[in-house]
Amino acid sequence: MEFTAKDIAGLVGGTIDGNPDVKVNRLARIEDGEPEALSFLANPKYYPYINSTRSSIVLVQSDFQAEQALSCTLIRVDDPYTAFANLLEIYDKMRKGKTGTSSLASIAKSAKIGNNAYIGDFVVISDNAVIGDDVKIFPHSYVGENVKIGSGTTLNPGVIIYYDCIIGNECTIHGGSVIGADGFGFAPQSDNNYKKVAQIGNVVIEDNVEIGANTTIDRATLGSTIIRRGVKLDNLIQVGHNVEIGENTVIAAQSGIAGSTKVGKNCMIGGQVGLAGHIVIADEVKIGAQAGLASNVNKPGSIILGSPAIDISRFRRIIAIFNNLDKLYYRIGDLEKTIKQLQAEKIGDEKIS
Amino acid sequence: MEFTAKDIAGLVGGTIDGNPDVKVNRLARIEDGEPEALSFLANPKYYPYINSTRSSIVLVQSDFQAEQALSCTLIRVDDPYTAFANLLEIYDKMRKGKTGTSSLASIAKSAKIGNNAYIGDFVVISDNAVIGDDVKIFPHSYVGENVKIGSGTTLNPGVIIYYDCIIGNECTIHGGSVIGADGFGFAPQSDNNYKKVAQIGNVVIEDNVEIGANTTIDRATLGSTIIRRGVKLDNLIQVGHNVEIGENTVIAAQSGIAGSTKVGKNCMIGGQVGLAGHIVIADEVKIGAQAGLASNVNKPGSIILGSPAIDISRFRRIIAIFNNLDKLYYRIGDLEKTIKQLQAEKIGDEKIS
Amino acid sequence: MEFTAKDIAGLVGGTIDGNPDVKVNRLARIEDGEPEALSFLANPKYYPYINSTRSSIVLVQSDFQAEQALSCTLIRVDDPYTAFANLLEIYDKMRKGKTGTSSLASIAKSAKIGNNAYIGDFVVISDNAVIGDDVKIFPHSYVGENVKIGSGTTLNPGVIIYYDCIIGNECTIHGGSVIGADGFGFAPQSDNNYKKVAQIGNVVIEDNVEIGANTTIDRATLGSTIIRRGVKLDNLIQVGHNVEIGENTVIAAQSGIAGSTKVGKNCMIGGQVGLAGHIVIADEVKIGAQAGLASNVNKPGSIILGSPAIDISRFRRIIAIFNNLDKLYYRIGDLEKTIKQLQAEKIGDEKIS
Repeated sequence: MEFTAKDIAGLVGGTIDGNPDVKVNRLARIEDGEPEALSFLANPKYYPYINSTRSSIVLVQSDFQAEQALSCTLIRVDDPYTAFANLLEIYDKMRKGKTGTSSLASIAKSAKIGNNAYIGDFVVISDNAVIGDDVKIFPHSYVGENVKIGSGTTLNPGVIIYYDCIIGNECTIHGGSVIGADGFGFAPQSDNNYKKVAQIGNVVIEDNVEIGANTTIDRATLGSTIIRRGVKLDNLIQVGHNVEIGENTVIAAQSGIAGSTKVGKNCMIGGQVGLAGHIVIADEVKIGAQAGLASNVNKPGSIILGSPAIDISRFRRIIAIFNNLDKLYYRIGDLEKTIKQLQAEKIGDEKIS
Repeated sequence: MEFTAKDIAGLVGGTIDGNPDVKVNRLARIEDGEPEALSFLANPKYYPYINSTRSSIVLVQSDFQAEQALSCTLIRVDDPYTAFANLLEIYDKMRKGKTGTSSLASIAKSAKIGNNAYIGDFVVISDNAVIGDDVKIFPHSYVGENVKIGSGTTLNPGVIIYYDCIIGNECTIHGGSVIGADGFGFAPQSDNNYKKVAQIGNVVIEDNVEIGANTTIDRATLGSTIIRRGVKLDNLIQVGHNVEIGENTVIAAQSGIAGSTKVGKNCMIGGQVGLAGHIVIADEVKIGAQAGLASNVNKPGSIILGSPAIDISRFRRIIAIFNNLDKLYYRIGDLEKTIKQLQAEKIGDEKIS
Repeated sequence: MEFTAKDIAGLVGGTIDGNPDVKVNRLARIEDGEPEALSFLANPKYYPYINSTRSSIVLVQSDFQAEQALSCTLIRVDDPYTAFANLLEIYDKMRKGKTGTSSLASIAKSAKIGNNAYIGDFVVISDNAVIGDDVKIFPHSYVGENVKIGSGTTLNPGVIIYYDCIIGNECTIHGGSVIGADGFGFAPQSDNNYKKVAQIGNVVIEDNVEIGANTTIDRATLGSTIIRRGVKLDNLIQVGHNVEIGENTVIAAQSGIAGSTKVGKNCMIGGQVGLAGHIVIADEVKIGAQAGLASNVNKPGSIILGSPAIDISRFRRIIAIFNNLDKLYYRIGDLEKTIKQLQAEKIGDEKIS
């Protein structure tokens, strides 16, 4: 995709200062500028880069004054950062603006596909699946029987959605994620073997959810594992069966939530966190990276850290002591010596007296 | 799939109390009941739900007495929970009862496929692979050269099995798992580069093993990485090269086992646990979530926690002190002050005397 | 693949002692020997196995003296271990020596494929992708638009490479890894919703990099996430957007690196380690398994452990105290009692005097 300075000025409502026909085909930071790239300049700290940048076009503030003649074309706008962010989005949407169904996809006759959808090569859409309008399903994705996918949702390459699961509108699921595999349920038998407990529930993902690459969300034993609207999950996250994650909660990579745990809304959970099964986390709770929780967090807005996790202020106090535990240890040794001496002196005193 | 109350009563050996022709097409918890769903009622705590449930059929105990007229049809059985669990399984098997080979699969001429197998769209079966009877291989799965898969085993969508690996009978492997990728072996060179150590062993998975989604089990350098019969692995687990996991051991999500470690049988390992390489874990050991083990656990039946992991009773005692380390810290400060005072007084006394 | 003793002797430059026509088709440890396998004997500790091994051929040292008549054929070489390692590599290369393009692959007309490449079944090569010479792309892999793959690189089955990413020469990427999924970037809005920040950068992987199975490396927001030459990443690792990993750094399974962090060269990072975002790790740093780092490591060659991570010598000292914290606790209790007694006695003394 190529754009002229004129095209860009039109998209962001700016005025051109330089060659209106110069072309760009990518975006770059001003300090990494290269020919045919577009950059922006918002922070005065970066002003000096304007003289040396190799970018062909730079977005600057309306009142920007160059100190010397510039080789790049300027586009003047009220807010270069916002203009640039808007361009990012436009660029991103253009790139993803695919439609049409590949002749190499396998689509069951009983499946329904909405208008304006993109179905890539080697995609499988199984019986009775319902795919909404403007959905994009990239190559190698698998949509199981009876799955429903809301409008505007994107499945990146290699996404696997098992039967009966429901995905909302305007969701994005990244490559290799597995939605709806069996929950981990086995009943111990007297001979040390385990008998599988059938997992016949499903996964329900509401609207505006983003799910990273290679994340796994297990189907419920019965009922649904539920990811509420606006939730953002990073890569390689494990969500166990019958878990529920509340609205707009954000979870960083490699965290795991064991079965039947309920996480509140607007929570922020760091990377590599572990939540035990059957616990409840209140709304707006923040959990630090690598924390481990084995019990409920009842107070909304709590900030907790550590494994087992405790309140952040206690954690910080305690970890500071922990990291100097050797000094504490020596102080105790010193105390013991001093006391022994005091006792010895006392006995000496008594003997003397 | 639809069933009448009469069908269900036949399947579970129960008697009908209500309309024998009412139809159900799904299962639901009694509190989530909806028309055309079947529920069960075993725990007296849940008895009140029978009056308000919208489920069409409810399994109850033979001697159950309703307190008021009910809108649902009852099926009376000796043990409603067991009857329901059996129905779960029947339902699950019906759903999975696929057979036949997709014309879109790629099957090498030298591969052997057993009777009654299901091979889905875009599956690859490579040269000299041997697939047993009643095996189900869902779309996008890859079976490498010389792989053997025992009878009754299911590969869910997108499973990858590298060449030479052996999978037993009645196993289930979930979507996106990778069996037999190269072990992580590199020999450091004098110039700071690493030279790859060829990994030419394989992975052997015995019978009745279940492996979750996106789990990775590396092939041995030489010989085999071995998963013994009855083992259950959850999602996103890492099993390094030449590891051996003993019979009926169960491991929760996101745990990792480094190369050449040997885990005993009937062990239970929690989520996000890390086992270092070249260690041995005895039989029937239980390891708590997020534990880290760098050395052998020799005593069968040990229960260990923490990182580095220690015996559970010591761990609990120590973590209780740790979580109050600030109090301990203040007590030491107080002790020091008191002793200083005692010393000062003593010096005072001596001066006086 | 089958080889005679004569073939093997030719490959390793050895002399045959026994039947030159005996055939082998696999490699095995001498203690696991079986007919048609080749083993080696280097360590004198293993000499007794030579009498009982069932292997057909054994590599031994030039001057090896059998104590009794042997059923196996010997091949005498200067260094049996090195000869065996060379055979491993030859065997490995033969196995992987595929070429040709499957008629079941989907290759865009605008893509360029180098000489001698292998493109497997159901592979997708998108518009404007450039694939170098001798590249091997196994079934179900996805190569996005504008992706460049250097010569001699192998993508194992089910690898996903998003648009615009660049992979160097002689790299190996294992099954299910996802390169170039969107970085985890969301701007919080006043209504608790998050707005996605478009991620339009890419991932650049330099030469001689190996990436394990189901690992995820996110594309940069702008610019590149960079994996420098010689890096080795194990399975299930998470690399966030705009991260840079220095030359020849090795990272074990399930570790995670948050966005914009920069790891030096020649580092060794253990399994399940977490690095926070926006930090810098110096060269040649070693980080123990399960460590958690929230701040820079400035000193090259540092060895650190724990979460939060500290220097190894302090960690060991502190963890030794931690693991005996209960004893320390009792010592403090004892001190308090002793002091109370001393004070009481003092008061007694004063009363007496």
